[in-house]
Amino acid sequence: MSDLVPDKILSLLKKKESYISGEDISAQLNISRQALWKHIQDLKDSGYTIEAVPHLGYRLEASPDRLFEFEVSRGLNTKTLGKKLFYFDTLTSTIDMAMDLGVKGASSGTLVLAESQTKGKGRLGRSWFSPKYKGLYISLILRPDMLPTQAPILTLLTAVSICEAIKVVSGLDTRIKWPNDILINNKKLCGILTQVVSETDKIDFVIISAGVNVNNDKKALTATATSLKEHKKEEICRVSLLQEILRRLEENYLVLEKKGAGQILEKWRQHNTTLGRRVKVYCQHKHNEGEALDIDSDGGLLLRKDNGLIEKVMAGDVVHCR
Amino acid sequence: MSDLVPDKILSLLKKKESYISGEDISAQLNISRQALWKHIQDLKDSGYTIEAVPHLGYRLEASPDRLFEFEVSRGLNTKTLGKKLFYFDTLTSTIDMAMDLGVKGASSGTLVLAESQTKGKGRLGRSWFSPKYKGLYISLILRPDMLPTQAPILTLLTAVSICEAIKVVSGLDTRIKWPNDILINNKKLCGILTQVVSETDKIDFVIISAGVNVNNDKKALTATATSLKEHKKEEICRVSLLQEILRRLEENYLVLEKKGAGQILEKWRQHNTTLGRRVKVYCQHKHNEGEALDIDSDGGLLLRKDNGLIEKVMAGDVVHCR
Repeated sequence: MSDLVPDKILSLLKKKESYISGEDISAQLNISRQALWKHIQDLKDSGYTIEAVPHLGYRLEASPDRLFEFEVSRGLNTKTLGKKLFYFDTLTSTIDMAMDLGVKGASSGTLVLAESQTKGKGRLGRSWFSPKYKGLYISLILRPDMLPTQAPILTLLTAVSICEAIKVVSGLDTRIKWPNDILINNKKLCGILTQVVSETDKIDFVIISAGVNVNNDKKALTATATSLKEHKKEEICRVSLLQEILRRLEENYLVLEKKGAGQILEKWRQHNTTLGRRVKVYCQHKHNEGEALDIDSDGGLLLRKDNGLIEKVMAGDVVHCR
Repeated sequence: MSDLVPDKILSLLKKKESYISGEDISAQLNISRQALWKHIQDLKDSGYTIEAVPHLGYRLEASPDRLFEFEVSRGLNTKTLGKKLFYFDTLTSTIDMAMDLGVKGASSGTLVLAESQTKGKGRLGRSWFSPKYKGLYISLILRPDMLPTQAPILTLLTAVSICEAIKVVSGLDTRIKWPNDILINNKKLCGILTQVVSETDKIDFVIISAGVNVNNDKKALTATATSLKEHKKEEICRVSLLQEILRRLEENYLVLEKKGAGQILEKWRQHNTTLGRRVKVYCQHKHNEGEALDIDSDGGLLLRKDNGLIEKVMAGDVVHCR
């Protein structure tokens, strides 16, 4: 349980289906009745519906769909990922905040999340539409003991982890388009962006950012985008999804550290929708075209070109030709 | 000429060997006599010796050895490098400041310099001794249109540029130990650190940092370090050296952009002291040993190991075995 008093109050309220007296709460948490009253007001201001009845006490009627630290922390059960969490109602971009924290030495596992972004970022300076309370907009700081050239595997690992978490929480099946788009029915559900701050032979830190369309209504999405709600036909609990993503990320990250990339790559292959297709890969000022054969141990995509030669591409925009 | 009033005052004082009247200066710069008097006091506080004689005016007797923006800018003649310059008397590290500026979008060519660093940084978390007014401690922000994997060439380019600048300004010959140490008589004169902030397929920005021992006295140096003063037997003008480094960097950077790495690599080979030697290269948790054959087009070192196989190493600590 978190050390935060509001969290402790909520825990007590959630334990009891009927009323719990203010006297009881104050005594258990060793706070004054006045302090309790103030915390209850704050919780109401944050969107919790709490009924207060004289002589009976307080009762929690409804919780808002918010990613407050004490909601995400409760029952998270990770060792490092998300244990340190910076929550914002609105940010220009979680990436900017995470970069700032990373440069200042934030520990591995630090998570930045926002309920909305005014300048949400995608790959290569593109934007990510980030409407309030509809999606997950997160940036995670990691400090892996890796060479900079090994970092692309983290993108694949993140894609796999998010697919797994979505399956657990919503039951929905998703597919990964190399390297880092998560799709349902060929429409984009989630984008992942990996940024690396490094010396030539040492990663200082990595920021893994993801935007997931969770409860967006179909009519608010572009023709090429989708949300979990569109397919599940009901709202998904964003707190549960975020927690499961963090757990899966931590689990897969530990596997990578202990056993290398093999198991991650195998999971990626199972979830992918790129291999076996004819694709065009646009990277910088040129593009490659061919059959997507496999991914290499470093996360690169192996292409068999029309001249028979096999070429590895490490990054780019993939277009599935058929 | 810079837009800074103190710079304009200094320029007028430097043009004239004898006195120039306060009236003249005020008229030429369109400032009040009172404002002029205040600027003269500021310049004196900054270390300039300015004689003021009633009825004659002002005369510049001596300039301090300082890297003030208007000293570095005067006659620099670069297109972008160092045109935007952040000067500090003391910083923890120019790198930290440059990282902060880079994240906030500072333009390519922005230079951070400090007269001293309290926590000067070397590669892999090592420290760089940065005594006040003795050396150059600089970090340069570049935004090259390159893949992250191409960044190591920038380290070689910087080493070449600094060797060339030292030759021009002091006449001294220096040698480069792969990848980024500049030596005189096998003692370390300069360290270079390249940091990259990138997505998988795009560099956001690079920070090239260098520490050069310029006017350090021999007795203040460790046994493995040296300074230009130790060999030249006189003080070197740090402003001139910094300007020449910036000019050489810009020139070589333009060559790299237009013609690729060939010419840079050739210059590097001419200055190097590693190729042809038997070396041990320590990188992360292992080391490679063999004969240093050549550098590859991406800046990697080609080693011929004892089993005859050739291996490329991209980074590490080199020990020259003989």
